[in-house]
Amino acid sequence: METTISSKTKTVVIGPDRPFTIIGERINPTGRKLLAKEMAAGDFSRVERDARAQVEAGAHMLDVNAGIPLIDEPAVLAQTIKLVQSITDVPISIDSSVVAALEAGLEAVEGKALVNSVTGEEERLESVLPLVKKYGAAVIGISNDESGISHDPDVRFAVAKKIIERAMDYGIPKEDVIIDPLVLPVGAVQTSGRQVFTLLRRIREELDVNTCCGASNVSFGLPDRHSINAHFLSMAIAHGLTSAITNPVRAELRTAIKAADMLAGHDEYCMAWIQYNRQMQPKTEVRARKQRV
Amino acid sequence: METTISSKTKTVVIGPDRPFTIIGERINPTGRKLLAKEMAAGDFSRVERDARAQVEAGAHMLDVNAGIPLIDEPAVLAQTIKLVQSITDVPISIDSSVVAALEAGLEAVEGKALVNSVTGEEERLESVLPLVKKYGAAVIGISNDESGISHDPDVRFAVAKKIIERAMDYGIPKEDVIIDPLVLPVGAVQTSGRQVFTLLRRIREELDVNTCCGASNVSFGLPDRHSINAHFLSMAIAHGLTSAITNPVRAELRTAIKAADMLAGHDEYCMAWIQYNRQMQPKTEVRARKQRV
Repeated sequence: METTISSKTKTVVIGPDRPFTIIGERINPTGRKLLAKEMAAGDFSRVERDARAQVEAGAHMLDVNAGIPLIDEPAVLAQTIKLVQSITDVPISIDSSVVAALEAGLEAVEGKALVNSVTGEEERLESVLPLVKKYGAAVIGISNDESGISHDPDVRFAVAKKIIERAMDYGIPKEDVIIDPLVLPVGAVQTSGRQVFTLLRRIREELDVNTCCGASNVSFGLPDRHSINAHFLSMAIAHGLTSAITNPVRAELRTAIKAADMLAGHDEYCMAWIQYNRQMQPKTEVRARKQRV
Repeated sequence: METTISSKTKTVVIGPDRPFTIIGERINPTGRKLLAKEMAAGDFSRVERDARAQVEAGAHMLDVNAGIPLIDEPAVLAQTIKLVQSITDVPISIDSSVVAALEAGLEAVEGKALVNSVTGEEERLESVLPLVKKYGAAVIGISNDESGISHDPDVRFAVAKKIIERAMDYGIPKEDVIIDPLVLPVGAVQTSGRQVFTLLRRIREELDVNTCCGASNVSFGLPDRHSINAHFLSMAIAHGLTSAITNPVRAELRTAIKAADMLAGHDEYCMAWIQYNRQMQPKTEVRARKQRV
C-alpha cells in the first residue's frame, strides 16, 4: 500500500518497500516561545531558515503548524504554507487542531497535502474527513478517541481500524489514511515502546496502511533524549514504520533513519548510506583542518 | 526459556524478559596482530586490561579466544581462561574452532561456561555436543552447515532447528542451546538485516530458545561501522535478540543496548538508563572542567 503526497513539482511516495519518509517537524510554534512571538508579529524569517535547513538535512516533506493563542490561525497557517512553498519544493503536512485552519491550509496549499490530523472522536471524524475528501488530500489518523489515549494497544488498534473505515465511508481511499499508533512516554508506561512495535506490525499486516509517529514523546522526562529517540526510530522502522514527523537537522536522528533504511533492506547497494557519509565527511575534515590551523 | 551461565560466584540469566546480555568480544587475537604476538610470547597484560575494561563497561560475560596460528591453542586457551577468571568474576564463553581447545577450556573453566560454538555440520555436532553434555555447559549453535552459510533464511532456520534437535538427542536441555542466526554483511546482501530480524522472531516463536549475534559483521566494508552496528543491535533487540558478542567499551554500542532494553520494556522505571546516564555525566563534567582550567 503506497501513499502519494505532492507539491506542485515534487511527489513523495510513502510505502513499506521504500526508503523512510521524513516529515520535518520544526515549523511549529508549540513549545517554541520565540518562534511563536515572531510569527504573531509577522516575522517569518525563522520559518524560512527552518524550512530550508530541514529540506537541506533530508526532509522529504514539511509539517507546518501555526497554533499560536489569540491569533487568526487560519490566516497565519495559510500564509505560512504559501511562504514555505515559495522557498522549498517539498509537499506539505498541514498541522492544526482547528478545523477552519485545516481548511484554510488546504485552500492555500499547492498539490496534494497531508492533513495532520484526525482522531477517532466522532466530532473530529465528521468535521475533518469531509475536508480531506473535498480537497483530495491524505490524512493522518491518530489512534485516540473520546475516552483519551488508551494504555491498551488493542483499544488503540480498534480506533485506528475505525478511522480507516470511516474515511472509506467518506470516499477517501484507504491508501490515503496514515495511522499514528501514538507513542506514550516510556518513563510513564514501561511497555510503551513494545506496544508501538506490536501495533506497527499489526497495522501493517491486518490493516495494510502506512504509519507515522512523532519520535520524541517516547523519551519525555528522561536524560539523553536524542539517543532514545534515535534508537526508538530505528527499532520502529525495523517493525515497519514508514514515516515520522521528526527533526532531520539532528544528526543522531538522520543517522538512525539512514542506518535503519539500509538494515531494513531499503538502500540498494547501500548507496544512500555511503553518500550520506561522504556528505558528512567533508564537514568533519574542514573542522579538523580549522582546528589544526 | 532462560539460559543460565555461571562463574564460581556469579550467575548470568539470558532470557527474553530480561535485560540484554553483553558478552565482551575483545579477548580474541583474530585480526589483532599485536595481541596475537603478545599472547604467543606469553605476555597477557593486554588480555588483563581488556578483561577489566569490558567488565567495567558492562560486559556480563567474557568471550575468550586464543586462535593464534602455530601455538598450542588448547594450552594457551586454558591459561587465558584461568587468568581472566582470576581477575574478573563474570562467566566465560569459550571460543574456538578447535575441539581439543574447547575441551581444554572446559577443563580449565570454573562454573558453567558457554561453548562458542557448534555449527550444523555433522562432524562438528558429533565432536562438540558430547563435550557440552559431559561438562554441563551451554552452547552457541551457528546456523550454517556443510554447504556453508545459506543466503536463504529458511535454510538457516532449518539448520538452527537441527542443531537444537541434535543437542537434545545428546541430552543437552533445549534451554542450553543459544542460536546465532548468522549476520551477512548488508553491503553484500541487501536483505541481510531484514533476514536476521525475521529469523530472530521465528527462532523465538517457533523454537523458543535464546539468540546471540556478532554485531559487527553486518557493517563489513561500509563507512561509520559503529553507527550501523549500534542501530543493528537495537533493531535486533526489538525483534527479540537476547545476547550479543560485542564490545561494550564502545559508547555507541553501550548506549544502543541500554536504550533498546528500555524501549523493549526491560528496564523498570527506566532506572538502568537513568543510572547509565549518571555514570556518563560526571566524566563529561570533569572533562569540561579540565578544559576550562
